[in-house]
Formats: sequence, structure tokens, C-alpha cells
Amino acid sequence: MIEEISKENIDKKVQMAAEAYQFLKNTTVKERAAFMNTVADQIEILGEELLQTAHAETSLPFTRLTGEKARTVGQWRSYAKAVAKGVYTEPRIDLAQPDKQKGDLRKYNVGTGPVVVFGASNFPFAFSTAGGDTASAIGAGCPVIVKAHPAHPKTSQLMADAIIAAVKESGWPEGIFSHITGTSYDIGAYLVQHKEIRAVAFTGSFTGGKALFDMANHREVPIPVFAEMGSINPIFALPNLLENRAEAFAKEYLSSLTLGVGQFCTNPGVCIALKGESLDRFIIALKDEIHEIVPAKMLHKGIYESFEKHKTIASGQPEVDIIATADTEIDEWQGRAMVIKTNAKNFMKNPVLNEEVFGPFGIIVTCETSDEMMEIAQQLKGQLTITIAATDEDARNNLTMVNLLKDKCGRLLFNGMPTGVEVVYAIQHGGPFPSTTDSRFTSVGPDAVKRFIRPISFQNWPDEFLPEELKNENPLHISRIVDGEVNSGSLKLQTT
Amino acid sequence: MIEEISKENIDKKVQMAAEAYQFLKNTTVKERAAFMNTVADQIEILGEELLQTAHAETSLPFTRLTGEKARTVGQWRSYAKAVAKGVYTEPRIDLAQPDKQKGDLRKYNVGTGPVVVFGASNFPFAFSTAGGDTASAIGAGCPVIVKAHPAHPKTSQLMADAIIAAVKESGWPEGIFSHITGTSYDIGAYLVQHKEIRAVAFTGSFTGGKALFDMANHREVPIPVFAEMGSINPIFALPNLLENRAEAFAKEYLSSLTLGVGQFCTNPGVCIALKGESLDRFIIALKDEIHEIVPAKMLHKGIYESFEKHKTIASGQPEVDIIATADTEIDEWQGRAMVIKTNAKNFMKNPVLNEEVFGPFGIIVTCETSDEMMEIAQQLKGQLTITIAATDEDARNNLTMVNLLKDKCGRLLFNGMPTGVEVVYAIQHGGPFPSTTDSRFTSVGPDAVKRFIRPISFQNWPDEFLPEELKNENPLHISRIVDGEVNSGSLKLQTT
Repeated sequence: MIEEISKENIDKKVQMAAEAYQFLKNTTVKERAAFMNTVADQIEILGEELLQTAHAETSLPFTRLTGEKARTVGQWRSYAKAVAKGVYTEPRIDLAQPDKQKGDLRKYNVGTGPVVVFGASNFPFAFSTAGGDTASAIGAGCPVIVKAHPAHPKTSQLMADAIIAAVKESGWPEGIFSHITGTSYDIGAYLVQHKEIRAVAFTGSFTGGKALFDMANHREVPIPVFAEMGSINPIFALPNLLENRAEAFAKEYLSSLTLGVGQFCTNPGVCIALKGESLDRFIIALKDEIHEIVPAKMLHKGIYESFEKHKTIASGQPEVDIIATADTEIDEWQGRAMVIKTNAKNFMKNPVLNEEVFGPFGIIVTCETSDEMMEIAQQLKGQLTITIAATDEDARNNLTMVNLLKDKCGRLLFNGMPTGVEVVYAIQHGGPFPSTTDSRFTSVGPDAVKRFIRPISFQNWPDEFLPEELKNENPLHISRIVDGEVNSGSLKLQTT
Repeated sequence: MIEEISKENIDKKVQMAAEAYQFLKNTTVKERAAFMNTVADQIEILGEELLQTAHAETSLPFTRLTGEKARTVGQWRSYAKAVAKGVYTEPRIDLAQPDKQKGDLRKYNVGTGPVVVFGASNFPFAFSTAGGDTASAIGAGCPVIVKAHPAHPKTSQLMADAIIAAVKESGWPEGIFSHITGTSYDIGAYLVQHKEIRAVAFTGSFTGGKALFDMANHREVPIPVFAEMGSINPIFALPNLLENRAEAFAKEYLSSLTLGVGQFCTNPGVCIALKGESLDRFIIALKDEIHEIVPAKMLHKGIYESFEKHKTIASGQPEVDIIATADTEIDEWQGRAMVIKTNAKNFMKNPVLNEEVFGPFGIIVTCETSDEMMEIAQQLKGQLTITIAATDEDARNNLTMVNLLKDKCGRLLFNGMPTGVEVVYAIQHGGPFPSTTDSRFTSVGPDAVKRFIRPISFQNWPDEFLPEELKNENPLHISRIVDGEVNSGSLKLQTT
């Protein structure tokens, strides 16, 4: 049984977070980075118990969980490194000059205040309690209140304990991190509307994310909601590529579509191609290859049932053919892969086919002409990723479409498959609405820290009162823009 | 008479902007910077006609208009300089490595798409048609549609013509910039809800800004609204400072309060101090000094009438004393300065006294104790600026309050007055709600460009298809983060 927290206890935790914020906003980037590395250490020492618990709660295989744990530790460490460098502090100093009326101005970014994080079910480590949202919020200087995902409560608790141990080890106020359990919708709603909360991070369904977004905008003081809400991640398979490698491409597509039983937000749910012999070869290969897919248990019963339901709805739409379906015997909650086919006109007019089916389910959309493919590109909603499966020649022949598709996604791939999200600076995990509520930010990579900062400008303050990041001496040795030029040194000012 | 534009013509202009965006997003930072300098040139050559027209429409004196014109030209040039350096493009490159699954990832920021700018009445050049919003949106790579402020239509048209001339001179598509006139509320509402519009910039009233914000959030695809909506810009006058220089401080305060007939968004509408002999000296000085204030005509009849109305309402509140009022004979629309006094408890409980009175109107709030001053700090709403009038010792004695006040403003001053907003990197012109809709951004300084960008990540694209900003050669010679380190050179890659 998951314990339901009372409103009084929520208030208490939020109040503690608000008080911890007054402490946290005055820590330096180096201090926050050191803390983040301590959290990484604490997660690293979680051993067999963590993996066993997570496996029992999510059915994810041990190899995957081992990799996800390493990724999670890596997130804390790589975000810490970027924070320590002052990448997100962006110090700007404009010194007093005779031709300026106002004297000395210095600006840097501070954390926005307490953040509520809603963990996701499909990444029990990397996108949950101690996941990237929590790491980036703390890196920014914001206390975090995690609303634990009810699908893996014990895993969450182990991760929360690791963070709490790091808080104790650092001698930081308890309110830096709180862990709230409960299954009621009201808990999340109450948190998002609490006046001391300054931002929200969420990974989950469109319905859930949009409800939080609306709630946050209707507050007396609106706050940002960074919700990642799902995506069909289309692949545009262009003619030369298909002609050259229809069979190999089918194998890669199916492998990506069924990876992790299709439970990735970057799962390539739609593949759009021109009608013809090459596409026929691709489809025949899909039919063959789907028998090679080994079935696996989905995350939980709810996800399995939802997958079966939406798969049936989508495949039962008019002008839809089932072209490949896994025929393996299945055990409890095992999602059986399916690929369907429809024509471009039907795809464009039927909204059901444009909705994500969470699981190993793909739609092949056949176009009569390249104009029709362009029409699909034009009316496509916002996506986390779009893939152009193409030869160089294909790309050259379709530059207008490629250019247009940049407006519809956060990450544009040239071949390869969209599953697999690298935790690096150059990743963008966040696309135009409705894939996320705010395409200006990423939830993966160190840049995720940007979601939780705001600038404050200090005018004419004596050095003793300035944060370390802005002091003349530059004691943290970070890169700053001084009078318009990048400068990593200390400022030699005439004493007044 | 101002021409009212038809919906059909709005649609046409928005469509042109959407098409121009496809062009603009592929321009390089250097090309956009060159364009911005061309606009600056075009504004610079506007001579006597511009000043005469603006003076006739706004009553602002020639010296002020001459200075504001120079500032406006300076905005285009300094934003261009920052854009050219790639400060807002933030290129990040993570090269393919054996231990990474996904190969080459490259990210940079592109303009979000067509932006609607609502000009302000109080800065006919710097915050209007060719003001900072337009300059920063174009710098980001976004076409702009200006809804001209009806208070200075001819001035707006002259500025629009300058931008249009620059568009022609550059051979850029006409849709880069459109100028829409009309007085109807419906025009703005229609624009903000138009599906091709991607962001909105506004400077004006809370009612206006909040209405746009709500409209934008209720769209099928919500978009950001950057509305600057007003502020009372409190000054906390601490005891030592007042004791040392009550009279000089009174002179400075009154001068800032009445600068430009109080028609600045950073006008210091409230001054909070401890009861006592020093404060009495300050008030006596105010009474004396107010007679020195030369009356001047306000921007237009509507603003004058609103000032008189709100001044009367505020000064007529319970437990309020009028302590200083300008007694000069006044001509048409001349705003007569007034300073009132009330006690802290009354100020905290009466919301009327916490609202901006646009014009030369100040409230002195007297506190019984420093705890009471802290209470005011705690319940203060978001502000563009907060000023701590203090000696070093005062600041040391009030560190907790100073620290708390950081959460309530975008710019925190140590002495001096908040009027006068420097156009530099280190300025923050944007504070917590309700002073603006989004405290994470500034509407003044090159960083204003940040409002109109979003990242896009390219995975495994051949060099020929990448934007110049991300090509191996680094042909624009901009600073990039390559594999986590700042790098301004070109990439020497092994050919594959």
C-alpha cells in the first residue's frame, strides 16, 4: 500500500522547501556541483537491492536497469560539471563608465524556487525520483519536491533515501529534497497550485501534462510547467534510401519500434513513404522480421491494458490494414508488436491515427506523390523527434520538406532510429506542442538546468554583498561576459 | 484617423510572415546582424520630421526624443553585435565517439517563428514599432508583425518605413516585417490567436498583458507572451542612510518620481522607511522640493485622465495623508506630482495602495519596527526593480531582508534611483509576476533576444545540410561548446 500524504504534511514539506531555497540560492555553483556528485556517489553504492526492487516493480530486465542506473549517475555528474563551470549562471558584468548614467550592473541566474517533479513510470531511475528533472532543478539552485510515481514506490524510496543521505552528508537543510507518496490526483493538483511552488516538471500523458499546464496558468501567480507528453516520432523514408536498403531498414525500424517493448517516448510510431516496389519490399521484410521479436512484459498492468486497447482501436479504423503482427504465445502483460498500414489521405483526416499508442505499434503511411508527403509534413503536430531516412541525394531532392520539418520537432535525425537519447549538451529532448508544453527547453542533457533559472541584476552593489559569481575577484574562476567580452579573469578595478 | 485593418488583410500579413520565417530561419547570425545594422542606419537618417512628429504626438520634449532615438539606434546595433557573435545561437556539438550509441549530435537555437509586437505609448521609439522587441525578435530570426500603438500613429509609420526600407535594401522577403494599424481590441486578440503566430511581446497595463497571456495559453497550441505590465518599484530606505542624508535623498527621490512626468515603468512609486526623526526630515524636504518641480504635459489625454483619477482614488483611501503636492498652475494634460503617506499596516491591507499609479505619484510607507518592514518585504508582489537605500552598515544589518527581496524583483539597486534602464548585457528588465508575465526573460539589453529562440538538435547530418553555425569548418568563427569545452576553431575530423 502506498501511503497517502495529508495536505498538512504537504504544506509542511513545501514550507521547508521555501526555507531551503533561501539557503540554496546563496550556494555557489561549485557547492551545488559538489552536492550533486555526492548524490551520484550515493546512487552508485546502491547495489543488488535497487536492481532487484526495480525489476520486481517494472519488469525491466537487469541489463537495462544496470545501464539506466549508470546513465542516472552520469546525469548527476555531467550536470554537476556544467553547473560548476557556470554555464547556466551566465554572469554578465557591465562596469561603471563615464558615458553611462547608471554605474555598475551585474547579472546572473538564480534558481527560480521550489520545483515539483512528477516521475515517469518508464524510466524508474533516469526520469523518476532521482532522475534528470531532480538533478537539473537542484543544479539550478531549486529545492525539489518529488511526487513519486505509484508504479514503482519502493524503487522511488530507495532513490529518495540516497538523495536524503547526500543532504545529510552535506549538512544542507532537509527541505532541499522531499519525497511525497500517494496515488490521489489531488496531491499533484494541490502541489502545483501551492503558492510557494515556482515550477513543475512532468513526464507522462498529454492529458496529465496539459491538466497541470492549465492549472499552473490559472494560478494567481502563473508558473512554468515543463511537461513531456508523448510523440509519434515520424520517420520520412525517402525513395532512394528505400530502394537501396528496404530490407535492412525494415529490420532497424522494427528493432527500434519494439525496443523496451516500445515503451520509449521516442518510439518511431509512424513511417511515411511513397507507394511503390521499394515500399512493398519494406513491408514484406516487416512481415518476416516481426516473428523474430521476443515478447516481453510491459511496465505494469495498466500500461499493458492501455496498449491492447489503443492498438485495437487504431488497427480497427477504416482504411487500415494490419500488415505484421507478432504471433508468439504471450505471458502475463506481454505487449505483442503490430504494424498497420494506411494511406496518406486517411492518416491526415483521422486524428486517432495521429495519437501515440504507447507500446510496440507502428503505422506505415503510404503516399501517392511527394506532394502528399509534403502535405503530411505541413499538417504534422509537434514531435520530440523526426527522422529523415534518406540518401544524400534524397535529402537534396527534398530540402523544402526537410526545412519545414525543423519546425515540427526538437531533434531531427538523418537516418538511424530515434530511440536512444544521449545525455550530452547537444541533445534536445523537447519538441513543439503537444509533444511538450515548452519547446524552448530540454529535459535531457545539462541544458535541462535552464528550465529552472531566472536572471537577477544588481546595480551598484559593493563587492562584499555580491554573490561569488559576480565578485571582482572572480573567486570561482568562471567565464563571464564583462563589458561585452568573454572574460575568465578577475577584475582589476581602481579603488574608489 | 487610424485605418482599421481587415481580418483578411491580417491573414495575408501573417501568411507572409510565416513564409518569410522559412527564409529567415536559414539566415546566418552574421546576415541578421548586417540587416539589423541596416535598420539602425535607416533610423539614424530620419531627421527633423521624426522628432517633430513624435513631439506633436507625445508631448515629449525634443531633448528626450533625441536621446531616445539614439538609444533606439544603439539597441539595434548592440543587439546586432551580440547576435553576430552567436551568443544566442549557443551551438553545441557532441562528436561521434566509440562509447556513444548515437553518433554525431549538434544543437543550436533558431527563431521560434512569427512574433507579434505591441508597442508601448511611453517610449515612442525605444519600446514601440522599431523598439527593442522588434530588434530582438528579428535578431533571433523571427519575422515581426507590429500592432502600432494608436497614441503615436505617424511616428510609428515613420519607423515602420525605415524598417521596410532596410528589408528592401537587403533584398529580404517583405513578410519579415509588417505594420498593422487600428484601435480595435479585436485586432490584437485576432493576431495573438492566429495559428501561425509563435510569440507575443507587449508593454502596457496589467489588464492588457494578462488578457493576452490568458488568450495565448488557451490556444490549441499555446505560445509564450512576454508582457511587461507595471510595477511600483519600492525603495526600502534604511535608517543610517536616512539619518546621514534625508534631505539629499528626498531631492533624488522626487527627481526620479517626476522624471518624464512619472511616465516610466521603473518609476519609484513607493518608499518604505522606519518612523522617526530622520523620516520626518525626509518628508519635510519632500514638501519643500516638490515646489521646484516644473510641470509638463503627459503623453496623451487618456493617460492624464487616468493619472488624475487614480491619484484621487489612492490619496482618498483611509489612513492616508497627502504630504506634498505640486501647486503650480497647470496647462492642458499636465500631471501634477503628489506624495502621500500611510502606515505599514494600512499599506499591507489595502490593495489599492499596492497598484501602480502611472504618473508622478509616490507613497511613503512608515513602519513602526524593522519587523514590520520585513513583513512588507515578505508580502510584496513581483516588481521590475527594488531599491535598497542604505549605507554598508544598513545592508549588513538587513541581510535577511535583502536576500528575500531578491525573489521579488528583476533588478536590485543599492542606492541610486530605478529610473534609467541601461541597454547592456547585465540589465534585467523583467521581474516576477505581476510586473511581467515571465521573470525568466528581459525586454531590455541584448539578452532580450533569448525570448524568441528554441533549440533544435541535428543527429548524424552530413556537413552539407547543416546550418553554417554548426558546420565542421565553423565558417562564422563563433564560439561553440564542442564535447563539453568552449571552442572557437574549426573541427578537424577524420573523413569517413
